[in-house]
Amino acid sequence: MAEYELYCFAQSGNSYKVALMLETTGQSWSPRFVDFFNGETRSPDYHEVNIMGEVPVLVRGDMRLSQSGVILDYLAEQTGQYRWTSEDERRDILRWLLFDNHKLTGYTSVYRFMRNFIEEPNLAVLDFLGGRVKTAYSVFDAHMKDRDWVVGDRATIADLSICGYLFYEDEIGVDFAADYPAIAAWLERIKALPGWKHPYDLMPGHPLPKG
Amino acid sequence: MAEYELYCFAQSGNSYKVALMLETTGQSWSPRFVDFFNGETRSPDYHEVNIMGEVPVLVRGDMRLSQSGVILDYLAEQTGQYRWTSEDERRDILRWLLFDNHKLTGYTSVYRFMRNFIEEPNLAVLDFLGGRVKTAYSVFDAHMKDRDWVVGDRATIADLSICGYLFYEDEIGVDFAADYPAIAAWLERIKALPGWKHPYDLMPGHPLPKG
Repeated sequence: MAEYELYCFAQSGNSYKVALMLETTGQSWSPRFVDFFNGETRSPDYHEVNIMGEVPVLVRGDMRLSQSGVILDYLAEQTGQYRWTSEDERRDILRWLLFDNHKLTGYTSVYRFMRNFIEEPNLAVLDFLGGRVKTAYSVFDAHMKDRDWVVGDRATIADLSICGYLFYEDEIGVDFAADYPAIAAWLERIKALPGWKHPYDLMPGHPLPKG
Repeated sequence: MAEYELYCFAQSGNSYKVALMLETTGQSWSPRFVDFFNGETRSPDYHEVNIMGEVPVLVRGDMRLSQSGVILDYLAEQTGQYRWTSEDERRDILRWLLFDNHKLTGYTSVYRFMRNFIEEPNLAVLDFLGGRVKTAYSVFDAHMKDRDWVVGDRATIADLSICGYLFYEDEIGVDFAADYPAIAAWLERIKALPGWKHPYDLMPGHPLPKG
């Protein structure tokens, strides 16, 4: 039996943030597939697991944690990896976690969902979300111009959080190399982390059944 | 000269989160008005202050902090108020800060902005955002049903964060008392905190100039 169980599914970049941390730090973990596309996260049973109705949820013994940023924070303390080295650095990491959840992952996740998994999405809404996504990428690309990692001089949980949806590049419809070169170079650095895998190779549920 | 300077403006609920903390903990602070509606946050000068192009920013001597959640975390440690008492509680507060930034404040802020400060907003986008806002309020109302405060048995920075936009009730167009009674009761508790003020009484820039 694995030490950690992760409620997740392959298309969830928020779950990927945690799966990538578990995998690259060599934890004993197993995925618990959540059937999001058939409504599992909207069921009363799932709301018992997480009142917010979201993945990921990490289970270890009697402990159950939700919100990817909280889980990453917990695993950083448990493993000593991807961690801050001072309170100032903890807050700088928190700053990027919040920016990511609000602006970068926040808008990317719903934009990519509508682009790929909804039939006939409203084009005005799609356009609105696409604009927000581009603004977030511009801010982040400017931050990454002269640096290798989001905070400090090594990968931290801020990097794992922000990259959550960005390996679904075709589904977002952006060309990072052409339009956000600092982000593209940073994504290559993340791919080079020992044990790195694409979300579709790390979590169950890909490809989606047809029809 | 005040100990703290806060880059803010009256219509910014994210700034209000910090202003309310400074005020109710009795800090020496002064507002530094940001002319958001005339584009100040999009100027190169402002991006020197905060690369994310956002308010609030808190200044204390040489220190400059951005992201309301980070500033609240800092002030909780400095003042010892609205603070966690254990690492588990710190993470539970973080969980609600992240939910707030992503889902509750995140969608409320842009929805209320489009409803009030944009001429002829796109109705499909407004409808989309309104749906997201209601989902967030339903989740939060369910959480508050049998409790007085977001985490534990007293007000913490999670409460200050989540209430950021909710006193602009008319501008959001919700009736908390009718539709989200647990939220309405909790907002009354926040209003009863010693030193509480409405955002329009706490920060400069209200009302907006006509035309």
